[in-house]
Amino acid sequence: MKKHNFSAGPSILPQEVLLKASTAIVDYNDSGLSLLEISHRSKDFVDIMEKARALVLELLGLEGKGYKALFLQGGASSQFLMIAMNLLEKRAGYLNTGSWSTKAIKEAEKLDDIYEVASSANANFNYIPKGYDIPEDYDYFHCTSNNTIFGTQLKEFPNSPVPMVCDMSSDIFSRVIDYSQFDLIYAGAQKNMGPAGTTLVVIKEDILGKVSRNIPSIMDYKKHIGAGSMFNTPPVFAVYTSMLTLEWLKEQGGIAAIEKENEKKARLMYSEIDLNPLFKGFASKEDRSDMNATFTLQNENLKETFEAMLKEAGISAVNGHRSVGGYRASMYNALPLDSVKALVEVMSELETKA
Amino acid sequence: MKKHNFSAGPSILPQEVLLKASTAIVDYNDSGLSLLEISHRSKDFVDIMEKARALVLELLGLEGKGYKALFLQGGASSQFLMIAMNLLEKRAGYLNTGSWSTKAIKEAEKLDDIYEVASSANANFNYIPKGYDIPEDYDYFHCTSNNTIFGTQLKEFPNSPVPMVCDMSSDIFSRVIDYSQFDLIYAGAQKNMGPAGTTLVVIKEDILGKVSRNIPSIMDYKKHIGAGSMFNTPPVFAVYTSMLTLEWLKEQGGIAAIEKENEKKARLMYSEIDLNPLFKGFASKEDRSDMNATFTLQNENLKETFEAMLKEAGISAVNGHRSVGGYRASMYNALPLDSVKALVEVMSELETKA
Ligand SMILES: Cc1ncc(COP(=O)(O)O)c(C=O)c1O
Ligand SMILES: Cc1ncc(COP(=O)(O)O)c(C=O)c1O
Ligand SMILES: [Mg+2]
Ligand SMILES: [Mg+2]
Ligand SMILES: [Mg+2]
Ligand SMILES: [Mg+2]
Repeated sequence: MKKHNFSAGPSILPQEVLLKASTAIVDYNDSGLSLLEISHRSKDFVDIMEKARALVLELLGLEGKGYKALFLQGGASSQFLMIAMNLLEKRAGYLNTGSWSTKAIKEAEKLDDIYEVASSANANFNYIPKGYDIPEDYDYFHCTSNNTIFGTQLKEFPNSPVPMVCDMSSDIFSRVIDYSQFDLIYAGAQKNMGPAGTTLVVIKEDILGKVSRNIPSIMDYKKHIGAGSMFNTPPVFAVYTSMLTLEWLKEQGGIAAIEKENEKKARLMYSEIDLNPLFKGFASKEDRSDMNATFTLQNENLKETFEAMLKEAGISAVNGHRSVGGYRASMYNALPLDSVKALVEVMSELETKA
Repeated sequence: MKKHNFSAGPSILPQEVLLKASTAIVDYNDSGLSLLEISHRSKDFVDIMEKARALVLELLGLEGKGYKALFLQGGASSQFLMIAMNLLEKRAGYLNTGSWSTKAIKEAEKLDDIYEVASSANANFNYIPKGYDIPEDYDYFHCTSNNTIFGTQLKEFPNSPVPMVCDMSSDIFSRVIDYSQFDLIYAGAQKNMGPAGTTLVVIKEDILGKVSRNIPSIMDYKKHIGAGSMFNTPPVFAVYTSMLTLEWLKEQGGIAAIEKENEKKARLMYSEIDLNPLFKGFASKEDRSDMNATFTLQNENLKETFEAMLKEAGISAVNGHRSVGGYRASMYNALPLDSVKALVEVMSELETKA
């Protein structure tokens, strides 16, 4: 049976990427060796790393604009700390739109003063605050473009007078925006870019070198840039598989093309949520995420039936996060429209049964 | 042609591990889903993580002795910082036996006072210092059990009056020692345990919680222990493949059995280096590493012939590190004795030609 995998992350990857990654583990490029057992300093791997870094800038439209791409370890969570280590001198402003923003704030607070420029905590993060100010004396402004857990997404970004840092873990490469409005973008690979185990950081180099702190080497973006993203042994397999996914995205027509697919999927999903009286969307309509649709079943008595039908249809991982409850359909780049169709079909079938 | 891969890291893994890892990428356990696209909170992955953590303690003989095993990200290099963050209150002592020890010292120095209890830097690290003292008022003592670059190995460890921390990146699981003499052991996976992308940390829990520093969450061993090594998304594939390698090691008969194999390989290698007048060992004999044999070719005129013969025999990655020059044969757990035989054969054939 065909599987429809709505996992919020680690999440679905293109089938052809999985096949290539699987082959490379037994025999990389007909070398007779596994990708896992060659030196990261070998030409083979350096080529992979450089290709991945170049594809990132090309796909985001950031070539020749002073940006560098890094594939680091530690997850997006480690960036919560690294950003503050590299950029926080006195104070910074954070937009609090969910659990991940909150964690980013908590981690940075250990180093210096953090101010929430706005927060939607008062409504369990079901909307995106708007119309806030960003003081000019902040070292930087931090936001989370897509709130994986709550299913909200920033459709517009503020005109920040200070460097703008964005956690794009769950929607990078999914939509056309002016990526050059950001000075630092970061994202764990495990949603739109690859397997868990590497974190993409895209930095405008000129924002670095401005803090007085003695930054530990392993946390110093400058050192990682200087070492070509190989300050120490990189997570070889995760970088390679991310490179394959970026190649796949380019073959699809890049971000502009995948955005159209993502919009189709989201439209279909939300129209079912809205039109079907059994379901209710969680996020405020104008802030709905095209990546993670969060919704609840209005009639608890139908829960068992619904979940049995999902299983029957090969649909997995649509359970909501405990802080929201209900359901969450994650529709990242690699999820086919057919999978959304399958889910929507089950939802509408449930309506006829109810 | 059969390949003989002497890479220093990332390095050779057991063929059956590679095959299983390759399969899991297309279809994990007949689930119809790739290992890469399932949630790290799923039962499937939690089982993998728990099995890997348990196997570590079992193989090292540390079950029921107050230790916890963690699979983190960031490489062994990130532990240089994390150890100091968690354990360094006033001062610590480091044994400097090579480039990696030196880097560990440099990183910890950013936080507080570090003293070298002894160093072999004066002889390009070709021996292991002995007979030094470890003051009782140090927060901890740090050593590197095997010096990957220079090819030296600690055969005995000091009787430390303070917690003993050891970087075992390049010889963990390779020999029978009393692992309980250490309070913290760490190792990048990419030599004896798995692919690059995860770092094993084994900690005696009672050494934690003694510093006044406000430790960043992502660097806090206690937080990682509390979260069952899933404080944030773990490097799923690297942990799985490490688990497979640990299972393989257990099937081989564990550390005691693999140590015998490793001794055979090292004996064969070093006897050729010693008996063949064309070659000379780099490390002082009593401190020679069973994992990385470093040696030079005495007659530079034979370099091209030797390297052509190596290539012809399918032998790869025996080039030495630039800080030592010459050659390095890394003979980690997964390297078959046959590969050492093949190398030794080429070396002795060169002698007949010379
Ligand atoms: C928006 C966002 N930020 C940060 C994270 C944390 O990522 P990691 O687990 O790689 O640290 C996640 C994980 O789901 C996320 O969705
Ligand atoms: C003994 C030792 N320590 C530390 C490291 C650094 O490991 P990583 O590249 O994972 O940071 C290495 C890498 O070869 C090593 O051999
Ligand atoms: Mg969130
Ligand atoms: Mg509705
Ligand atoms: Mg060394
Ligand atoms: Mg000799």
